[in-house]
Amino acid sequence: MTVLSVINICGTLAFTISGAYAGMQKRLDLFGIIVIAFVTSIGGGTIRDVLIGTKPVRWVIDTPVIYLIIFATLLSVFGKNYIKKIDSPLLLFDALGLGCFFVTGYEQASLMSLPAATCVIIGTITACFGGVIRDILLNEIPVLFRKEIYATACILGGTLHYGLGFFSELHEYAKVITLLFIFAVRILSIRNNISLPKIKLDN
Amino acid sequence: MTVLSVINICGTLAFTISGAYAGMQKRLDLFGIIVIAFVTSIGGGTIRDVLIGTKPVRWVIDTPVIYLIIFATLLSVFGKNYIKKIDSPLLLFDALGLGCFFVTGYEQASLMSLPAATCVIIGTITACFGGVIRDILLNEIPVLFRKEIYATACILGGTLHYGLGFFSELHEYAKVITLLFIFAVRILSIRNNISLPKIKLDN
Amino acid sequence: MTVLSVINICGTLAFTISGAYAGMQKRLDLFGIIVIAFVTSIGGGTIRDVLIGTKPVRWVIDTPVIYLIIFATLLSVFGKNYIKKIDSPLLLFDALGLGCFFVTGYEQASLMSLPAATCVIIGTITACFGGVIRDILLNEIPVLFRKEIYATACILGGTLHYGLGFFSELHEYAKVITLLFIFAVRILSIRNNISLPKIKLDN
Repeated sequence: MTVLSVINICGTLAFTISGAYAGMQKRLDLFGIIVIAFVTSIGGGTIRDVLIGTKPVRWVIDTPVIYLIIFATLLSVFGKNYIKKIDSPLLLFDALGLGCFFVTGYEQASLMSLPAATCVIIGTITACFGGVIRDILLNEIPVLFRKEIYATACILGGTLHYGLGFFSELHEYAKVITLLFIFAVRILSIRNNISLPKIKLDN
Repeated sequence: MTVLSVINICGTLAFTISGAYAGMQKRLDLFGIIVIAFVTSIGGGTIRDVLIGTKPVRWVIDTPVIYLIIFATLLSVFGKNYIKKIDSPLLLFDALGLGCFFVTGYEQASLMSLPAATCVIIGTITACFGGVIRDILLNEIPVLFRKEIYATACILGGTLHYGLGFFSELHEYAKVITLLFIFAVRILSIRNNISLPKIKLDN
Repeated sequence: MTVLSVINICGTLAFTISGAYAGMQKRLDLFGIIVIAFVTSIGGGTIRDVLIGTKPVRWVIDTPVIYLIIFATLLSVFGKNYIKKIDSPLLLFDALGLGCFFVTGYEQASLMSLPAATCVIIGTITACFGGVIRDILLNEIPVLFRKEIYATACILGGTLHYGLGFFSELHEYAKVITLLFIFAVRILSIRNNISLPKIKLDN
């Protein structure tokens, strides 16, 4: 489906740039920045493939994606002073990527006839865990665990996607509806500054 | 074997609660706490499955375990003020889980005809590395590498398990004996405050 | 090929000792040191096997390597006061290991008919990511991302290796040439204190 591929590329680009930017903030060298950008972009899909047993991991045989990521990283490094100015388009791309990566992850788990709860988990991992590995490599507690509605958008979207499966006439639109729903939840939560409550122990 | 499954559930619960507690100490949001609890519980088995090539990873097709972990995490969060009071039952569960996860890991490696030393390593990874991933995600040096007799109990238990293999008449009891031995070593080392010496460089 | 195996053992030893040394600097206990040394040594190959789908992961069925690593770790611990004195032989071993691990990683990816760019990436991961996992476990930003020419030597070597593939008469020497080239680049960059520029954001 062409629309999905275009969105997928936008998501990959957004994740790559966010990884490159995080690497530059930590003053890594060029190689380090490429690795962080790469891992942010393909990390979630890699964990998905390892968990569900896709062999080899998908990016290993997907050369265009490798070149796309390296190219986007170099562009980020050379245009580093312009990145801040594209902050809000980046958030849009990132939200699109979130929805798109979730849907591809969910679908691949679903193709293996995994139970619905697992499909939601696998989709969420696909969409979110590239950023988790990025944060681990940069020696931070993953922002995912302390941040606005991000993974939660995936889980809500997964519930919707599961529900849509019962309406066979919606079948071909289900992916796009879920993607747009996750996108909308994410954007609305940023706009309105909504986050999950932090849970702490009384002392 | 029913006794083993019951113990396995106790171990899973103990690991889940310990993960949820660690997440609350770091003031994560609800989603972060669920992820940490989940990873603490199934992380060791996941690494085991990836290393020995079980495909897909076991929890992916084990929905009851997923629900059990989510349920136990929510319970931990709502009952957070009671967790400290069950500190010593938790240590018992944890020690039972340690023994039980070791035995299941060892047995699965053994079914693939891996050499005995590898079976001990795989069993130890199954029992201990959920906690290692928890500590990495929470940005700590894994407590496993600086703590009392924990992995060491597994390695001793593994040696015993290997030895028991030579007595064919003990075959059906070997698992339970190893499990109880690891449990006993762990509990005794806590009681008597025994730990491995730290090794440091002279400066 | 016997020369390659001898070099491989030297590399494994150098990586093991470097891991054990890092663990002692962080004052881990004996078990922690063994794990860090082990992971430094076999971590890169493990990620390679998981990515390209070798099943089970190679070290799991390679008992001699397991014993070699444990033995070298114990030797490092007991001889901890002598390690500093062998600093420069260690750098030589490490550079040899880097070249050797790269070549074995590249070759295994190549045997699976993966594209050349991927072979270079897989070879680099094999050579470098044991150290990355070591640094993550010790709660540091991987030194690989902020250090002298290290991974870069692998990438240059990979380009050479790919080029050598076009000269069929060089086929049997290609591995050794690449290995020595990576070794030379690494040693020369240490000697002349050459590193990649750090990239930082203007503020």
